[in-house]
Amino acid sequence: MINKRLHTPEGVKDFKPEEYAYKKGIEKIIETTFISNGYRRVNTPTLEFSEVFAEVGSDAELERYRFLSREGDILVMRSDMTPAICRLAATAYSNEDLPLRFYYIENMFRYNEKNQGKQREFTQGGIELIGEAGIEGDCEVLICAVSSLLNLGLDSFKIDIGHSEFLEGALEEAGVSDEASSKIKAAIIDKNYVKVSEIIDSLDIKKEIKDFLCDLPLYLGGSEVLSKAVEIFSSEKPLRALEYMQKISDCLKGCGLDKYVSFDLGIVPQLEYYTGIIFRGYALGSGYSVLSGGRYDRLSLSFERSFSAVGFALKIDELIPLLENKGVKVKKKKTDTLLLYSEKGKNAALSTGIKLRKGGMNIENYYGEIDKAIKYAEDKGLGGVIYFIDNENVKLYNVNEGEETVVKISELLGAEE
Amino acid sequence: MINKRLHTPEGVKDFKPEEYAYKKGIEKIIETTFISNGYRRVNTPTLEFSEVFAEVGSDAELERYRFLSREGDILVMRSDMTPAICRLAATAYSNEDLPLRFYYIENMFRYNEKNQGKQREFTQGGIELIGEAGIEGDCEVLICAVSSLLNLGLDSFKIDIGHSEFLEGALEEAGVSDEASSKIKAAIIDKNYVKVSEIIDSLDIKKEIKDFLCDLPLYLGGSEVLSKAVEIFSSEKPLRALEYMQKISDCLKGCGLDKYVSFDLGIVPQLEYYTGIIFRGYALGSGYSVLSGGRYDRLSLSFERSFSAVGFALKIDELIPLLENKGVKVKKKKTDTLLLYSEKGKNAALSTGIKLRKGGMNIENYYGEIDKAIKYAEDKGLGGVIYFIDNENVKLYNVNEGEETVVKISELLGAEE
Repeated sequence: MINKRLHTPEGVKDFKPEEYAYKKGIEKIIETTFISNGYRRVNTPTLEFSEVFAEVGSDAELERYRFLSREGDILVMRSDMTPAICRLAATAYSNEDLPLRFYYIENMFRYNEKNQGKQREFTQGGIELIGEAGIEGDCEVLICAVSSLLNLGLDSFKIDIGHSEFLEGALEEAGVSDEASSKIKAAIIDKNYVKVSEIIDSLDIKKEIKDFLCDLPLYLGGSEVLSKAVEIFSSEKPLRALEYMQKISDCLKGCGLDKYVSFDLGIVPQLEYYTGIIFRGYALGSGYSVLSGGRYDRLSLSFERSFSAVGFALKIDELIPLLENKGVKVKKKKTDTLLLYSEKGKNAALSTGIKLRKGGMNIENYYGEIDKAIKYAEDKGLGGVIYFIDNENVKLYNVNEGEETVVKISELLGAEE
Repeated sequence: MINKRLHTPEGVKDFKPEEYAYKKGIEKIIETTFISNGYRRVNTPTLEFSEVFAEVGSDAELERYRFLSREGDILVMRSDMTPAICRLAATAYSNEDLPLRFYYIENMFRYNEKNQGKQREFTQGGIELIGEAGIEGDCEVLICAVSSLLNLGLDSFKIDIGHSEFLEGALEEAGVSDEASSKIKAAIIDKNYVKVSEIIDSLDIKKEIKDFLCDLPLYLGGSEVLSKAVEIFSSEKPLRALEYMQKISDCLKGCGLDKYVSFDLGIVPQLEYYTGIIFRGYALGSGYSVLSGGRYDRLSLSFERSFSAVGFALKIDELIPLLENKGVKVKKKKTDTLLLYSEKGKNAALSTGIKLRKGGMNIENYYGEIDKAIKYAEDKGLGGVIYFIDNENVKLYNVNEGEETVVKISELLGAEE
């Protein structure tokens, strides 16, 4: 039997200082990107009524941490920020306040299957642009997504863009029954294209569309996949979606970001709330997507309002190993100096320490002997040791160069001020 | 019936941007203080096995969010970081790594009673100094606690210091039975001094100690309360605790911080893991303590190790209204400029926006007409509007001074670079 006091539960973990400093540094880069795009940070509770997530989709529902509160309500631990921020916007803001630009960097909780290697508590950073119905909103969010990955130091990545209405429209044009449509979509989500072909072969539909559906994995690429698909369809729904994606493509080309995006005509919305563009970002070296997003104009109806919205989230835990492998560095605030004292210089040491820290230095206390202190400073990579000889004088050691000098405490403080 | 989709559950809340920026700004000041004292940030999971918190105390146990995981384990949502960080230190570090200086700023979860007005999800920032057994460790942590409150801009506060063994020893010297001791301590925790007197009156104990126990609320003040108590007791346990507190007092006086501390001989440890000094900070204007801490040298035994430790936590949600009332300001990164464009200047606007943001500007997009955009910028307090006339020229509006100038985009980028 394991001693549970010594372990973390399945799928959650501790962060030691080195690892956590890196994670926080990455979050800082992401935050700076969001702020530079005019977004402001909000937060919602870790616990919500389960009703908040009711529209999200049944697969996601199975993954939720859920329990009965003492008041008898079913509470869930936040698994996705989008419905929660939509609730916040719906309840705390009026139509005159729109558009709202919100960002978040918070932990989410999902019962991810153990064998996928995913964490059950994980961090997402994302934006939500609320109340901007036009294509400008979609482009702004896509540009911010590309900028986030570029600012993190990635360059080999693609954001695959699809449209929630395209495949729906294509199947409608072909006259595929709702039942067969659902089966086809489920097979696409599972990337089981053999099954997709089997289902399609058994249907009596136009040859061009049949071929298109069987070749779906090939309709992933630059804007040329859009032009090719335009030749195949003739009804309004699929054509409107293709035309919309073409405009997105033009806009991204206009600001030189087209090399970072692809169009994927086989994208099926996996969250029920998406209503327009849907996208996922993939980076070289990661088995999972590193970001996902889309438009969700109908989600606000769950909260008794009607506003359009579009957003995306970065999967920070998936990004970290990629960035480490690429050697991406983050800014660190580290301790630089050891404040060494014994009983004799104690008062001076502690009060000088308070002043030096106030002046911006990061200083660790050490009560004990000189030799041990210098060894300790060397081992921890600290630059200097200040030894408080008595209540008036200090000896300064430069650990790297092995130098030492004696100065008055008043001089030390003078130099700092 | 309430529509649960529109509400947050009992005791948890949303944070709008203004409020969250303030909270994050306060956390930043606290973090800077901890880093300047040589502490490094760690994190532990939101969910732990319930065994991790087994030693904490029965009152705390009732407040815990607890549920059965799919694996059949009882999980609790973190209610206190100290046992979790103690587990981390016990499992991921060896004796050679000591001392460890860890800090955290995280959310905790407790079923606080509704009528107390406390939140059930709340934020604590604290430090843990692990593996430093001497009085130097206690002083370091107390100095860091005082510095934190000073750096936040507070001055009217006191940290009340007690010792977990003092009252125990006093009752032992008086020969009070375990049963009566428990009742007295429970009455003290409830601040029911009438009941304390009643219990004591019924006991056959030395008059001096009886008077002392009945006057317990008066033994709160500067180091003079320690000198007064030394006259009353003669056995080792209470005297050792008094002598220890006297040394703490001398040290804090030595660095000029004595005016921020009091000694409280009636402090009863409310968490079972405290073993030496115990302290709580109170600020003028707050009904609750704003920080609490102490030494917990035996807690590591729960994790099959033996190391001493001392730490404290700031109650950030209690501090915020105090700091707001005092007019304490925090640094904000805010949007300064509106990037205004229409179809004509779109490509230039979006690509120039990317470059300006990379250069450090915080810019919000606005697709539409000039007049509305200027009104919008005024309402939101933005300093300027950049209007993209076409793909080569921009008009710059200074919102405050009502000025406008036309410049080439290349000049604008040149000025920024």
